[in-house]
Order: sequence, then C-alpha cells, then structure tokens
Amino acid sequence: MASRRRVVALLTDFGTHDAYVGVLKGVLLGFAPEAQVVDLSHDVPAQDIRSARRLLASAVPYFPESTVFVVVVDPGVGTDRCALAARREGRLFVAPDNGLLAFLDQGRPAAEFRRIDADRWGLRPRSATFHGRDVFAPVAGRLASGLAFGRVGAVVARIEPGPPEPAASSIPGGLAGAVVAVDRFGTLVTNLRATDLEMLGTGGSLEVRLGARRLGAVRRTFADVPTGRPVCFVGSFGELEIAVRDGDAARRFRCGVGAPVVVRAVRAR
Amino acid sequence: MASRRRVVALLTDFGTHDAYVGVLKGVLLGFAPEAQVVDLSHDVPAQDIRSARRLLASAVPYFPESTVFVVVVDPGVGTDRCALAARREGRLFVAPDNGLLAFLDQGRPAAEFRRIDADRWGLRPRSATFHGRDVFAPVAGRLASGLAFGRVGAVVARIEPGPPEPAASSIPGGLAGAVVAVDRFGTLVTNLRATDLEMLGTGGSLEVRLGARRLGAVRRTFADVPTGRPVCFVGSFGELEIAVRDGDAARRFRCGVGAPVVVRAVRAR
Amino acid sequence: MASRRRVVALLTDFGTHDAYVGVLKGVLLGFAPEAQVVDLSHDVPAQDIRSARRLLASAVPYFPESTVFVVVVDPGVGTDRCALAARREGRLFVAPDNGLLAFLDQGRPAAEFRRIDADRWGLRPRSATFHGRDVFAPVAGRLASGLAFGRVGAVVARIEPGPPEPAASSIPGGLAGAVVAVDRFGTLVTNLRATDLEMLGTGGSLEVRLGARRLGAVRRTFADVPTGRPVCFVGSFGELEIAVRDGDAARRFRCGVGAPVVVRAVRAR
Repeated sequence: MASRRRVVALLTDFGTHDAYVGVLKGVLLGFAPEAQVVDLSHDVPAQDIRSARRLLASAVPYFPESTVFVVVVDPGVGTDRCALAARREGRLFVAPDNGLLAFLDQGRPAAEFRRIDADRWGLRPRSATFHGRDVFAPVAGRLASGLAFGRVGAVVARIEPGPPEPAASSIPGGLAGAVVAVDRFGTLVTNLRATDLEMLGTGGSLEVRLGARRLGAVRRTFADVPTGRPVCFVGSFGELEIAVRDGDAARRFRCGVGAPVVVRAVRAR
Repeated sequence: MASRRRVVALLTDFGTHDAYVGVLKGVLLGFAPEAQVVDLSHDVPAQDIRSARRLLASAVPYFPESTVFVVVVDPGVGTDRCALAARREGRLFVAPDNGLLAFLDQGRPAAEFRRIDADRWGLRPRSATFHGRDVFAPVAGRLASGLAFGRVGAVVARIEPGPPEPAASSIPGGLAGAVVAVDRFGTLVTNLRATDLEMLGTGGSLEVRLGARRLGAVRRTFADVPTGRPVCFVGSFGELEIAVRDGDAARRFRCGVGAPVVVRAVRAR
Repeated sequence: MASRRRVVALLTDFGTHDAYVGVLKGVLLGFAPEAQVVDLSHDVPAQDIRSARRLLASAVPYFPESTVFVVVVDPGVGTDRCALAARREGRLFVAPDNGLLAFLDQGRPAAEFRRIDADRWGLRPRSATFHGRDVFAPVAGRLASGLAFGRVGAVVARIEPGPPEPAASSIPGGLAGAVVAVDRFGTLVTNLRATDLEMLGTGGSLEVRLGARRLGAVRRTFADVPTGRPVCFVGSFGELEIAVRDGDAARRFRCGVGAPVVVRAVRAR
C-alpha cells in the first residue's frame, strides 16, 4: 500500500547558505536513492530546540504514515548525548536526545524510542561536530530503504524532556498565556489552545488582551474584520492567534515571543 | 509519453521559517506520492499578488506540459472568494481567485477555469485561515494522481482580474514605463517589453532614461560594457532591464519598484 | 547498480526570491523527468565564485557517484567564456569556465573537461544573460537522462583557474592562515587544514591566535569547553574552525572572512 517512494522530511537549523544541508542530502540519497526528500525548514533559529519542536509537532500529522523525519538541532553534538530513533503510528524519527522528540512521548499512542547504534549504522570516521551527516542521514536513509526499526539500537526507557514549553494558566474567569511564535505574516501565535478556550464556557463571548491592550472578541478568521484592524481567532493549528488584517501584528503592537496574553469570558448581557 | 512522475510546482508567500510549506507538502504527498515536487519560491513578499503573478507567468512556459502549479497568496482566505482550478495546454493550476491566474485569461490558447468544490475534494474539517493545506494541496495532489480536471467543480465564466499591472504608455518619440521588480543582483526589471521597443523603429539606436538619469543605448547584454558601468538590455524574459556590470543597479541609482523609465528612439545622424 | 533516479544537485547565486531557480528546474525536468533534484544552495553571495567553489568542493564527496552537479555563478555570461562539462569518478558537472570547477583539476584522479556545444544541446533561442536556463539546465538534464559525456563537446585541455584561494603559509614554529568563511552559527572556518596542523608535530599542544587574541589549544569539539567560551577544533570538513560554545564567534570577535589566524606548536614542558 505504501509507495516505494518513502517521504524523508528534513528539519534543521543549518540555514541554506552553507554546505551542511546539501551534504546531509547527498549522504541520505546514497542510502535511499528512491526517497521523496522534503525540506520542512532549515531556518529554525540556531540551536532553538523549542522552535524546532513546535514546527515539527505541527507538521507531523499532515505527513504520510510511512514518513521518516530527520530533525537536527544539536547543540550537544560531540558530548555523550544519545542519538534517538523513534516510531509512532508508522512514522519514524531520528534526532538528538535533547527534547526535540519529547512531544512524541506525551501523545497517544505511545511512541517507541531506541538509541541509535552509531558505530554500526553511521559513517566512518564520525566527526564530533556534524552528526546530521555522519549519523542521522545514514540512519534515516537506511530506515527509508527498509532497515527494520528494531535493529537501529537498544530500547530507551526515558528520553530527555528538553526545554519546557511555557504553560497556560487559569486565572479568575479566564486564561493567561503568552505569544510563543511570530509567523512570516507578523501573526502572533499563542500557547492558548482551542480546547482550553472551550472550557471557558460558551454563555458569552471571549475577550482577548495582549499586554494592556484590549483586542476584542475571538472571531472565526481575519476576514471577519476590516483591513488594518486587529483580530483574534483560532488559527489553522488550533492555537489562539492575534493578527492585523492585511497587516503585521508583531510590528503594529511591537511585541514578540513572550508577550503576555489573557482571555476572559464575558457574560452576554 | 508523459512521465508517471508529474511535476507539482509550488509558489507561495509562506516563507520558509514556519511549518506552512512543510505541512502543505505533507498533505500533497499523501495524495500524490509519486509527484516531482518543485519549489518555485516561497519568498514572494507577503500578500503581494502582483509579484507572485509576475514570477508565475515567467516560469510557466519553461515547465513540462503536465505540470500542476499550486499558487497560494491568499489575503482573502476565509471570505467567500472562490478557489480556482485552471487548465491551459495541459498545464494545471490551483489558486485563490484573486488575480494570480489572470494572465492565463489573456494569453492564447484560452484557459479553462473551474471553481474547486472544496467540500468534496478538500480536507475535513477545513480551516478558515489555511486553504493551502486544506484545499489547494489536496486538489493539486488529486489532479497529479489522475483526477480529471472536469470533475474539480463547475465551470467559471469570469475570474477576478486582481491588481492591475502598471502599463507602459506611448510618448512623443518613445515609450514611458516603470521598474516593476528588482532581482537578487540588484538589476531593475521594467515593464517595457522587447516587442514594444521594436515598434520604436530600427533606423537608429534607443536611449534609456531612469528618472532624470541618461543611461545610454540598449545593448545586447551587460558584458557589453566595462565593469562598474550601467547597462540597459533586453533580459532573459523579454523585458528591458537596467543593470550595473558586476554591480548592483538598485543600490547605485537608489531606486526600486515604481521608478520611471523612458526609452526614446534616436535618429542616426 | 545505479538508481534510475539520478541525483541532479543545484548550486547557484540566484537567490530564492525571483523566478530564476524555478525556471532552471522546469527546463531540467523537461529533459530529465525522473531526476532526483537537490538544492545545494541558491544563497551563495552574488557572483562569488570562491564561496561557491568552497561549498561545492565540500559537498561533492558525499554525493552518489552518478550525481550531476549544476553550478551557475556566472558573471561572464554573454561574453565568450566557455561553458564546461566535467567528469570525475562517475560524477558529472556543468558550469561556466570561470574557476568554479578548478578544484576538480587539482585532485586525483584527474577530471576530464569538455566544452559544451551550446548550439547543439542548449535551448533555442539562447539569451545572452541566463545560461543556467538556456545551456546548463538542458545539458544537465540530457546527461541525467543518458547523453554520453563524450558527446557534450570537444575536450578542453586547460580550464580557467578562477580567483585564487588565500594560501596558508609557514612561519617560524607554526602556520599563518585566515578565516575563509563564516557559517550560519557564526563559526569561523579557516584555510588551515588538519593535514597542515599535523605537520607541526605532536610533541606538545597547538595554540591558536585570531588576530592578537589568544584562543588556547586545539580541541576535539566545541563540547570540550563550557558554554560561552571560545573553542578551536578541526571541523567536519577537515579545516580548523573557531567557535564560541552555544554562541556566535563572528559576533563575539567582530571579525569575518580575511581575519588572520596563526597556529603555533607549544612544547610540552
């Protein structure tokens, strides 16, 4: 049923100015010449595990079940940090054990983790600075070409959680959270999820504040307000977002990641 | 005759820092695992329909006849704007109906337009903010995998023209136009086409002005002048361009999109 | 043994904002519909032959033997500069004859060079400004689809060397070199190679200076120092590199390409 052309999706903080991404792909294709290689992004901020994890968690459910994800944001390369392989619902992942794959450990069904045996499956010699090329690409290529997941290495019982996500918290009559990302359009993405907002009750409307600024009710989409007006809505990945229609909210409100956001239920009068 | 590996070419304003492009590709590959996916660009200025349309119109003739183009610059997502599919000479297109595909309506042979039945062919549920993922990717994937164009939805008689292109105009003894793009090398691309210039006659040479600055005659290529000198020539897409050899014309002349350009025929003496 | 899906790897200075890369790919896929197309980078600084050559030389050994490399940094397009094709160890290359492929001429086994017969294998008409589209893409596509290398054009005895690489030189008790690149992480890459350092002897340690600043000994990897500390090590492509652990060395030391670097052997006491 699965295509012979297995998708291998790449997510790194390598940027696209240097040879790193190209070299990783060259090694990968040597092991998996038929792979369907897809760039998720190579523009994750350097060494920013949180950003990479958010991007990955958003993208995974939309990829075919047999996809192999190669995720390399690796400030600990050259230390004794473990190189992980993971499997959930047919999707496979390789990444350093630094929290990048922690979201797999939380959801259901449970993911299975293994420690990559780099001596067996990696390139030789192996550098102390570029395991994307020397470990993750060869293992991903082998997995895409049929290496059984169980042969990658020993089972890992507990993975590193990595940097914690900022948590949303309950406040009287509402929820307090924060901006966790600013997208290309200047839209502010928050850590308040649609499922959280629904618990605030449906007897009235929800009002949003960004810092001290009142932004009004939660709408369906940015097209529900006139051009140039701020608008709050549940975005396409289920998170509360703050935008300016046909504009740039981050620039307008001069704020970014970390800015406090509060949502309160307002009784219908 | 056509390859089983149909080309699917992507053009968006999503940038490459967020998950948007990756997610669109994931959905696409779920429907079309054998597709040959190509990024035209994801760096179109945010919500800039004109730029995307120019880039697309330049690229289309160079792609195989069976290519499916996915074009998403979509400030009207979530409104009642139509989602279009189009066909011309075997090439297929999906895009919001906001002018992105208007150039297909002008050329010959005539293009055929249909309104995408998103309820039938899109993802469920469908967001109000990301139809690249929820509508255009699934329809493009289905088209690349064999869905007949005629089944996409009902025929559309008239599409939206979108923002008008700046027009070149006749002036005594010449043509007046403007810079419409600045490329990566700082070259100024104008809306004066080789075919327009030919109508100015061939009895002498053509002289170019950029604002008040005289730039001399139209040459064959930038290699026809010494390093560091300004040079005007008909570029590789048939438009008059203004460059500085081994330099950056936009920086040298401190101008960009909208700068006035005049070409006048000069009699041979 | 080789896959039918031949890798075609692209390296240009076209950037990703314009239509240039997309158009090149469209032409390529018209000739080679089954190609496995890989972007090495399109973000080489405009017209910077040295940077492109460094990136290419780093990447080549990691690609499959049958890869076709398309390398277009082409300030001399439109002049009478030759369009080259090259072959070494099964890998094929097309590029302008301006030094981009000079590294193939130095290594062993010897590369074979031919002058592309653009009249025969290129697009018609052929522009004077965009041979990536009109010459290199069609020839690469044909080579990937089975055109014999020997039919590309006549043998070339001597290719252009292009801009010289800055050379490392011997000084009393050490080596003097320079920073030749700054990577995405702010790491300074030098032209001092591991093989050069080994010749300084192994009786003690090696000490590194960046300009007037002493940076200490050469380590195995950046993980060998605490966060925020400078560290020198042989990087993943065999060159001495200067980094700051979890930081940005270029910013910290306010230096870039051209900065002088000296390594001296220090006797064990």
